[in-house]
Amino acid sequence: MIAWKNLDTLAAYDKLAALKDHIDLAAVMAGENGAARVKEYQAPMAGGLNFNYAAKEVDDEVMAALAELAEEAQLIEKFEELYNGAVINTGENRMVLHHLARRQLGKAVVADGVDKREFYVSQQKKAAEFAEKVHAGEIVNEKGEAFTDVVQIGIGGSDLGPRALYIALENWARATGNFKMEAHFISNVDPDDAAAVLKAVDLSRSLFIVVSKSGTTLETLTNESFVKNALVEAGLDPSKHMLAVTSETSPMAKSEDYLAAFFMDDYIGGRYSSVSSVGGAVLSLAFGPEVFDRILKGAADEDQLATEKDIRKNPDMLDALIGLYERNVQGYTATAVLPYSQALSRFPAHLQQCDMESNGKTVNRFGEPVNYVTGPVIFGEPGTNGQHSFYQLLHQGSDIIPLQFVGFRNSQIGDDIIIEGSTSQAKLCANVAAQIVAFACGKKDENLNKDFKGGRPSSIIVGDQLTPEALGALLAHFENKIMFQGFLWNLNSFDQEGVQLGKVLAKRVLAHDTDGALKAFSDLLNI
Amino acid sequence: MIAWKNLDTLAAYDKLAALKDHIDLAAVMAGENGAARVKEYQAPMAGGLNFNYAAKEVDDEVMAALAELAEEAQLIEKFEELYNGAVINTGENRMVLHHLARRQLGKAVVADGVDKREFYVSQQKKAAEFAEKVHAGEIVNEKGEAFTDVVQIGIGGSDLGPRALYIALENWARATGNFKMEAHFISNVDPDDAAAVLKAVDLSRSLFIVVSKSGTTLETLTNESFVKNALVEAGLDPSKHMLAVTSETSPMAKSEDYLAAFFMDDYIGGRYSSVSSVGGAVLSLAFGPEVFDRILKGAADEDQLATEKDIRKNPDMLDALIGLYERNVQGYTATAVLPYSQALSRFPAHLQQCDMESNGKTVNRFGEPVNYVTGPVIFGEPGTNGQHSFYQLLHQGSDIIPLQFVGFRNSQIGDDIIIEGSTSQAKLCANVAAQIVAFACGKKDENLNKDFKGGRPSSIIVGDQLTPEALGALLAHFENKIMFQGFLWNLNSFDQEGVQLGKVLAKRVLAHDTDGALKAFSDLLNI
Repeated sequence: MIAWKNLDTLAAYDKLAALKDHIDLAAVMAGENGAARVKEYQAPMAGGLNFNYAAKEVDDEVMAALAELAEEAQLIEKFEELYNGAVINTGENRMVLHHLARRQLGKAVVADGVDKREFYVSQQKKAAEFAEKVHAGEIVNEKGEAFTDVVQIGIGGSDLGPRALYIALENWARATGNFKMEAHFISNVDPDDAAAVLKAVDLSRSLFIVVSKSGTTLETLTNESFVKNALVEAGLDPSKHMLAVTSETSPMAKSEDYLAAFFMDDYIGGRYSSVSSVGGAVLSLAFGPEVFDRILKGAADEDQLATEKDIRKNPDMLDALIGLYERNVQGYTATAVLPYSQALSRFPAHLQQCDMESNGKTVNRFGEPVNYVTGPVIFGEPGTNGQHSFYQLLHQGSDIIPLQFVGFRNSQIGDDIIIEGSTSQAKLCANVAAQIVAFACGKKDENLNKDFKGGRPSSIIVGDQLTPEALGALLAHFENKIMFQGFLWNLNSFDQEGVQLGKVLAKRVLAHDTDGALKAFSDLLNI
Repeated sequence: MIAWKNLDTLAAYDKLAALKDHIDLAAVMAGENGAARVKEYQAPMAGGLNFNYAAKEVDDEVMAALAELAEEAQLIEKFEELYNGAVINTGENRMVLHHLARRQLGKAVVADGVDKREFYVSQQKKAAEFAEKVHAGEIVNEKGEAFTDVVQIGIGGSDLGPRALYIALENWARATGNFKMEAHFISNVDPDDAAAVLKAVDLSRSLFIVVSKSGTTLETLTNESFVKNALVEAGLDPSKHMLAVTSETSPMAKSEDYLAAFFMDDYIGGRYSSVSSVGGAVLSLAFGPEVFDRILKGAADEDQLATEKDIRKNPDMLDALIGLYERNVQGYTATAVLPYSQALSRFPAHLQQCDMESNGKTVNRFGEPVNYVTGPVIFGEPGTNGQHSFYQLLHQGSDIIPLQFVGFRNSQIGDDIIIEGSTSQAKLCANVAAQIVAFACGKKDENLNKDFKGGRPSSIIVGDQLTPEALGALLAHFENKIMFQGFLWNLNSFDQEGVQLGKVLAKRVLAHDTDGALKAFSDLLNI
């Protein structure tokens, strides 16, 4: 029987809390003990990745406490409930089924008479067949020309995840012959966003995917109209250029305004929707359906690992538990995501949404306030760029900020150069190895300005190359980490009531139904 | 006489600290009092901007305490010392002269027999004349063809600032006939970064600017070689395509490998160097020298405001003081920068460097540890995108995170569309107005999941349009804010010793001179 309890009611949490400042990280990471930790504290992930947590503030005692907490909090049982179709999103009375878009992990899940796995697979097939016809020149523009570009119109989860994944594989796809169409993204209601993208593409040879589950997202519908106007002005027929990704019940679903519609449902939230048609349509068009399948495969394999009871074999759950120790016991307020891969330049922005929108809450799943802190601030930029930017604060600033590195042994394109005896790729890898040790061990100096205290924890996910499988595994890892943390904090990680008030007030401003400060700020902005 | 004292030794700081939780922000921002605050708590900036801090946790009592602190900390006198050429960067024994690149604020500053204002102006002229010759077709490629693209090769301050400014004005320049050449940026040592840029440009018609003050930045020299190889392989002569921005004493300065060299010096740090040749060369080529001059003009006018003693007339100093109150008295650990302008999409990344690298330190300018917290974490993304991402945590998360909004009444391109009775630009502005009030005032709801506590402080910088002058003012505002905060914390904001250890260890990894954890991580990454 599943018990949904607040973190501070769990006996195992009290034990863990007693282990505050338990490890002297600089000491345990020094010398051969440090080397031994690098070999011991690692867990294989899917997609050929490996989660190494040697430089985290753990030892066997902390690990035992984390294992006990995982068990008492019933993390695996809760995940099982989730993928078997329980109503985990209590606030919106919905199941949470993004895992089902990649694999049937448990029982068949049926809703409204439909097997949901079959539904997701059918939409993948539909997008795959459509993409193949476009690539084969069977679906063409008014003049019979092939489409060369695809533009995704969406915001939040309909933008950040698909955009991050596209950027992550763009160079890989070009280098491996998998590049089919260039993708672009319009998200912001700022009219300059859409205008700039439209100026950069050949409208006559572009497909536009309008992504809105409800068919009512104001930014997206506005940008859709913006694009439609541009198409009409260019003498083109919008219905030959526009696609819809929406729910079957939305006004967009059956409209003849679209060349095709791919469906999503209420059981996959926006920030988890890259694996649904939201990511599937654009990525299948850009790189071909096989590449999208490989992303799903990596994610599915990582999900499988997330069902493991043993925390040492379950990197997603373990990462969640260590993060909880850092946030609630050690009191760290932020986490930096630092991929040593230019291709992952927008991956931190995707994780920022996924994490902060899921667990940036102070009310538990029963609507009661909790007495402990929850989701941290997530931010990050790729290395080595970040080293020349905000790392100063990470090394010597007031607050300790846990770090999540990602690194690959090989580049995606393969073009490289040897300077001073090493390739650029070796330099990149050398830097991430060096940073982990610099943060953990520090270095004494009598000049305090040059002194490094160390004791700054990090983990690293290492792989051979950023392939579609590795990317899928990476995506699923963080999604699952966030899910497990939500279980630990007893939150509903799958709604986002905190975004509603702003929407309501913005509507009032546009209707000129304002007073007080709202009217004054509206006047200031000339609305 | 200037006294450099730690914050916690100032009597005015004790007074300020006594004002913890002094304001009930939701209460004072309600009703007509809120409207009155919007009118009262604002300060004009340069470039047609206005700093509105009505939704910050200030009232006349807090303002009086801040004014007293500004005076006791001698902020204006310290700034005067700085622009008159005192050695403010004590750690590196250097003057700090980025203001002088935009205007002579005080006395003539002479170093090594050179008037530094004249030096900076001479380099601006040199870059301007070069750019004009390129635009006029007087400087051309091997075949006599005009150059169409410019690629900046640099990292950290040689990348983030110039890139953010380029993106900020790209659409404006296209819309106003000021667009001359497309700019690209190579920064990361990840070989995929350079490879991808090189695949995207026509090498034969591209200029490459190598930016390294010392001429020894490993990433930059590596990428320079990467590019040179590509030029040679394409049958081109690198010396006809490469420019240098470097110091006069660097090995790059007199080399015949470059078509031209523009100089910088040790008195302008990387993260403050956008106004030097580091930004000047690439921006003059991209948009023409007049546009770069207009950026400098906006910055210079903002600097002039920063010399004002009255905190109500000095938005840079005031912003610094309020930030200090938030960090040290209220205990907030992060600040989000949220421009409602897609053009400012990379401006938060630039500020992240500028702020976190300047003030992420725990040792004062005399090398002694300080007993108070210093620079916060800085992160951000443009609105409205952020609203669909991490705003959930900002509204309902555990920690209060102060917010810095930026908004403009008009778009840059001017293409717009009316949907549901309003333009996209009006929707954008309505959203930022709504967010300020939602964060400050909140909204009670019996369902705690839908309850907003409010009390989340923000300020907004508002302008008519993101022009070059507005951009320069914005840049200078934050630079000056960071400088004043450094003065308050008694830090040297102009060195970055915290980045050294990683560099040293990376070299050891590449030399295979490792043991312990460093060797183990090197092995893990196959170096």
